[in-house]
Parts: sequence; structure tokens; C-alpha cells
Amino acid sequence: MVEMRKPIQVKEAVARVWEQRQEGNTTYIPLIESDNRRLAEDIIAAHPVPTFSKSPYDGFAIRSEDTVHAGRNNPISFKVVEHIGAGQVPQKQLHAGEATRIMTGAQIPAGADCIAMFEICQTYEDDHKESYMSIKRKMESGQNIIEEGSEVAKGDLLVPKGTLINPGVKAVLATFGYSQVKVAKKPIVGIIATGTELLDVDEDLQPGKIRNSNAYMIASQVVRAGADYHYFGKLKDELEESYQTIAKALDQVDILITTGGVSVGDFDLMPDIYERLGAEVLFNKLAMRPGSVTTAAVAGDKILYGLSGNPSACYVGFELYVRPILQHKLANQKPFLKRIKAKLANDFPKPNPFTRFVRSYITYDDGLVYAKPAGIDKSNVVTSLAHTDALTVLPGGTRGFKAGDEVDVLLLDDQEGQCEF
Amino acid sequence: MVEMRKPIQVKEAVARVWEQRQEGNTTYIPLIESDNRRLAEDIIAAHPVPTFSKSPYDGFAIRSEDTVHAGRNNPISFKVVEHIGAGQVPQKQLHAGEATRIMTGAQIPAGADCIAMFEICQTYEDDHKESYMSIKRKMESGQNIIEEGSEVAKGDLLVPKGTLINPGVKAVLATFGYSQVKVAKKPIVGIIATGTELLDVDEDLQPGKIRNSNAYMIASQVVRAGADYHYFGKLKDELEESYQTIAKALDQVDILITTGGVSVGDFDLMPDIYERLGAEVLFNKLAMRPGSVTTAAVAGDKILYGLSGNPSACYVGFELYVRPILQHKLANQKPFLKRIKAKLANDFPKPNPFTRFVRSYITYDDGLVYAKPAGIDKSNVVTSLAHTDALTVLPGGTRGFKAGDEVDVLLLDDQEGQCEF
Repeated sequence: MVEMRKPIQVKEAVARVWEQRQEGNTTYIPLIESDNRRLAEDIIAAHPVPTFSKSPYDGFAIRSEDTVHAGRNNPISFKVVEHIGAGQVPQKQLHAGEATRIMTGAQIPAGADCIAMFEICQTYEDDHKESYMSIKRKMESGQNIIEEGSEVAKGDLLVPKGTLINPGVKAVLATFGYSQVKVAKKPIVGIIATGTELLDVDEDLQPGKIRNSNAYMIASQVVRAGADYHYFGKLKDELEESYQTIAKALDQVDILITTGGVSVGDFDLMPDIYERLGAEVLFNKLAMRPGSVTTAAVAGDKILYGLSGNPSACYVGFELYVRPILQHKLANQKPFLKRIKAKLANDFPKPNPFTRFVRSYITYDDGLVYAKPAGIDKSNVVTSLAHTDALTVLPGGTRGFKAGDEVDVLLLDDQEGQCEF
Repeated sequence: MVEMRKPIQVKEAVARVWEQRQEGNTTYIPLIESDNRRLAEDIIAAHPVPTFSKSPYDGFAIRSEDTVHAGRNNPISFKVVEHIGAGQVPQKQLHAGEATRIMTGAQIPAGADCIAMFEICQTYEDDHKESYMSIKRKMESGQNIIEEGSEVAKGDLLVPKGTLINPGVKAVLATFGYSQVKVAKKPIVGIIATGTELLDVDEDLQPGKIRNSNAYMIASQVVRAGADYHYFGKLKDELEESYQTIAKALDQVDILITTGGVSVGDFDLMPDIYERLGAEVLFNKLAMRPGSVTTAAVAGDKILYGLSGNPSACYVGFELYVRPILQHKLANQKPFLKRIKAKLANDFPKPNPFTRFVRSYITYDDGLVYAKPAGIDKSNVVTSLAHTDALTVLPGGTRGFKAGDEVDVLLLDDQEGQCEF
């Protein structure tokens, strides 16, 4: 007879897997390879930035006090005593009436307290081929000088632990000499597809069969979530062989995902396999669409996810229940999908007793955010996933929704969010 | 004497480099490695989806006409003649009073026109151990059947050329048997840092010098833009050696980026090098901040970019002028940064005669999009880049901007946009 399962709410299901989260490991990698990894430590300024006062322009370093009488009809002359480019260290201290020709980024010589840009200076040589310059403007002390430490003081927190390394973070790491970077180690997610109906992607279609798209999709979601995957292939609906493969796979991974076989059909083997593994089932029926048969279980210190064989249900199950656990292991301090308010772009007339996660994409118009359903919203449909970058959350109830209704949206390509179920 | 350069508008500069764009090449790669690549061909449905009519539930396939008299007090019995799981092909055609026990995803047997879910069926055996089931509800023709082709018809355009391959696109490709995928080949961007002041990232600080952060930053921007890079190291401010390195590098790459040396300082060698290369300078002075000295030139069929040595100016120069050319080569049909309207989250009181691209990040509040400046907005500042995921465009003029003002924002982590300068 058909097993009767009691559906639990999404909020409760998220809480149950979240309780099973574990800290991740860390590793050092070369800076050059660190794109899109997450920092495993706070980056603290070991020195001020800049480390020395410098010029923001090409020009002349002078003493502002020498210019107090300068004016349109009263040019003040300076003898040019040194010429320095960026990376050179000034050797001469400036005295009254002296100037240093200085390039952008070069260190301010001792004695100077301002920079006169080339554009306001006249240069000339005297009879002895000595260089001079003159200006007709009064300068302020500190004018055009980038002071030591004006950007960052020593000890400042620059980038917090858990931050995703993007081009800007990389620039900061390089500035502070991190040739090796301490990052979160990528968790390994095992993937197993179940179902006698599955063909390999390079097989010709056969009657009654479909190609295995879920394994590729999940692998791609794992990569998007910042982890690595190990694909163990696909299983036929045979209990003993499936059990052996799953038990062995579990030893090699941090988290194991199976797709299919979790419902109450005659060939759905996962419930029996969880029992043989001695796994504690956290949930196996959810008050959500798609993905009502999404299952999570715990064996030892590992979470096993039994995602639906239906592509869209599988997709949603991964994002809601697997991704936050991976992001936590990766040190992300906001490991859930970012949840924002948006306006629904289309009518969604069909009411549903359960919370629905509608495959959608985000559009912007005139300062407002819209969520647009990505196509046919049935759990077996795969093609609408191609255009999906968000999930619109439609609460269960007796009515449908209208274009313009305010809805919650989970962003899939954004990297940070709080748990707001 | 200082060379006088005439600044041109951003719109004009974008147009001048855009005119130099070239088509990219294509290559085939395994589906499993295709994440974040761009499709180099339209994906057209070679067959309908599904390829056969199938059951969305575990239940019994029957003929609806047999249920016309079913009711709460009138159960109708069916003899179960076959039992099929997903992937199995039904062998028996249903006749009056017959049912096929059928699992989710399995093919509908000939003769059946609806599926009764397990939940509404009673099953029993007769004295001869023959299986039967009965239902008390009238069924409609077509009820609970996923019709062949109901998701996709043969010949439908599924995913257009130029689309970034995400988990959903990968699922579509797997469904249609693309074990190899035709994608845009990654252009190779050469990177050379110039400046005697630059230290390697693993060197200790020295007076007057800074670590080379721009090369790491640009490499990361190149990766984010979907291309590959070749780093040729850093050059001292010596003309002959710099010329030789740059000329050789140009032969090995599609596009060459140098950082630093483009201003009018005494050690800024790039203008001389462009001349020796016989390169046509497209622009070398822009009416924008940061990045006013951003330079682009063309030698043969290759674009050379001379980006500022200042980190933020360098960053902005890449995103505005290099990225669209790379995206075009990668077959992106919307190769510019996505431009949206947002509200400014903070006052930005300092007026500027030129268009300013303020390092910012995007926040969402109650359906509205906000752009928040990421920190100190000076061209030499590197740390604010760590928190940047957008550039707020503040038009030049005599006034500052106030929190709540509507502004244009360019999204850096989004992948598609039109040219809207």
C-alpha cells in the first residue's frame, strides 16, 4: 500500500538541514588562482595605504609658504633641485625657493608640503642651464598631496572572512602582499542519478526513455555554489547494487545527492536504502511545489539529499536545501539565497495550496525590480530553467496572483543572503 | 613641454573602440566542462519534449470512458493487466475495464487516455490472485497525462546563440544529447604592467614603491569577462626594452592591455611606443573620472589598451572599453554592461565637470534598487574596489547629487546589456 507521508513547511525543512551544517576546511592557494573563492580569514591592513605621502599628479613639489605672495602679476620662481619618477626615492630636502620635479605616484620630498601641477607652472633655464619653474598662484599646505595612511590605516579591517574574491578583492590582496591566500576548501558533493529510464547524454533516444539531464544540471549548480562534484554515474532501479554504490560513494564525499527514486512509486528505492544505511530521515514530504518529495537524511556526519527526478523539482530542491549548507562550509557569512521584494511581471492565475517557487528571471524598469516567470511552470519541465536566474516565492492559498503584486524573490546568481523563511 | 590632449566624451570613445570589434572563433568542448561559456550556435529542438506521452504521477492508466458512471456509491473496477516503471515500454493495449499500473515518467500505454493517482484508487486481488483496482470518481480524457510535445515542439528555438551556459541551459543541452557543445573560444588578453615603482606581490615594501596590484586585478576582470589572459610581467620605465616586450607580446594575443605610462609624465613611455608600433591612437584623453588618461590604439588588427596606473581608473577603463569588445568576441548579443535606473543611497556632494563612474554596490529595499558608493572615490584608491559590483554614472555638471536622486548604474556582475551611452 502507499506510504502516507506528512508534509512539513519549507521553513521547518530548512531549519532541519541547517542544524546539520558543519564548518568547512581551509587551504592556501596562489593569489593568481583565487578568483571566485571565499576568504577564510579577515584581511587586516598590515601597513597604511599609501605607505608614504605621494603626488597624485605630474608637477612640482614645493613649500606652500614660498607662494604666499604669488599672484597673476607676481610669479614666484623656484630652482628645480631634483627630478623624481614613481618608484624613485627623493634624496634632497627642499629649502626656501627650491622645487622638485615629481611624477604621479612618486614620494613627496622632505620639506615640501604641496604639489603644483604642470598645467599651472612655467619652466625655463637660466644662462647656466640650471632648471627653474615659476607659478602665479598661492598654494595651500597639503594641496595635491595624498597623505600616508589617508586611504587605509594600519590595522583596518579591509575585507572580512567569507567574502568572495572578485577583481577588487584581488587588488587589495596584491597590495598587501598576499601571494598565497587562505581560502575555504571546496566541499565535495557526490552526485548519483537513479532511474532505469535514464540514457546517457550521448545515447540515441529510445522508446520510454529520456536523457539524464539532472546529473549535468546538479553538477553545474554545485559549481555555481562554489563546490566541487564527483559524479558516480547512474543507477538502475535495483536495490542491492544501488545500496552498494551509494554506501561506497558516501565515504568519498562531504555531501551526497541522488536524483529520483524518492517518491512512493513501486521502483523508488531510496526509502529502503536510507533504512539500510541507518540514516535518519529529516524530511521526505514538503509543503512546496515543485519538489514535494524532496528528501534529506543524515548518515553519520554526512547529509544525503534525495532530490526529485523531475528537473525543476530537482533544481529548486538543490537551491533551497543544499546550497546554504555548501555556502556555510565555504565560510559565507550570509549563506542563504538573497531574498528581495519585486513586482510580479505577469499574472499567475493558478492558485496552489502549497508555497510555489516559480522559475523566473529578474528585470529592472525605472528603479523598480520585476520578477518574470521563465516559462511553463510544471515540475517535469526542463526548458524554462535555461532562462531562470531567480525563484519567485508564491505563498500557498486559494487565490492566484496578478501582475504588479509584490512578491518575494530569491536571487540565484547573487551570492549572499540571510535565512528569511 | 607638456603635450596638450583634447578630451573626448565616453560615448564617442566607446564608439571608436566598438568600430574595431572583431568576430570571435568557436570551438567544441565537452558538456560537463561548459559552465559559464557562451553558446556559439542556436540550440534548436531536434525532437519534441517529451518524446512520448507520459504519466506525471504514480497511479493507473485507464480509459476515461470506463469511468462515466463512477461515483461515491458506485466504484468501478478494473483488471490490472500490466505494471510499468519509468524507462519501460508498455506492451499491452488497454481494452474496456483494463488498467495498467504505471509509475511517474513512464510511457502511457495505447488505449489509455488518463491517469488515476494511487491516492484515489483501491487495489485488491480476486480469488485467483489476479490484481484489480477500483475508483469512485469520473475521469476526464487527457487528465494527468503529459502529452508528447507539450513542453517543446520539434524545431523550437530553445536557447539562442551567445547565451551564457548556466545550470538550466546545461540541463537543456543534456536533454537534447549535446555531449559536445559549440561555444565561443576564449580570446586571449595580454597584460603588461609598467612602472619602475612596482614591486612583485611577494616582495617586501621598499621606500617609494608599491606592490603591483593592477595586473592581478585586470587578470581577474578578464576572467570575469569570460576570456583568458597571458601575463607578460612588469616593465621598468625604459623605452627600448618596453617596446621590444610589447611588440612581441602583441603577436601572441588578441588584445593587449598595459597599465601605467599613458599620462604626460616624463617617464610615461606608452605614447612613444604607440608611435614606434605605427599604432593609430583612437583616444588618449577622456572626459571622465576616474580614467581621464585611458588610451586605446590599433596596430594591425589588434586593439592595444593603455589603462591608467591608478587602480580605480584602471578598473573602470577595463569595464567600459575592453569588456564589450571581449563580450562581442564571445558571441554575447548584448555585450555591454547592463545599465539600470536606481536611487542614489548617499549624498555625493562633490560636483565634477566630467562624467564620474562611482564605484558602488547595489542594494534592494522594498522593490526599489539603490546604488551605494563603495568607499573613498579617488582614482588612486584600491580598497573600495573590493566592495564594488556596480558603477554609478554621475553626469558632469556644476552640482553634486543627493541621496534619493535617480541615477544610472552599470552592473558589473550581470552579463548582458545594450550600449546606452
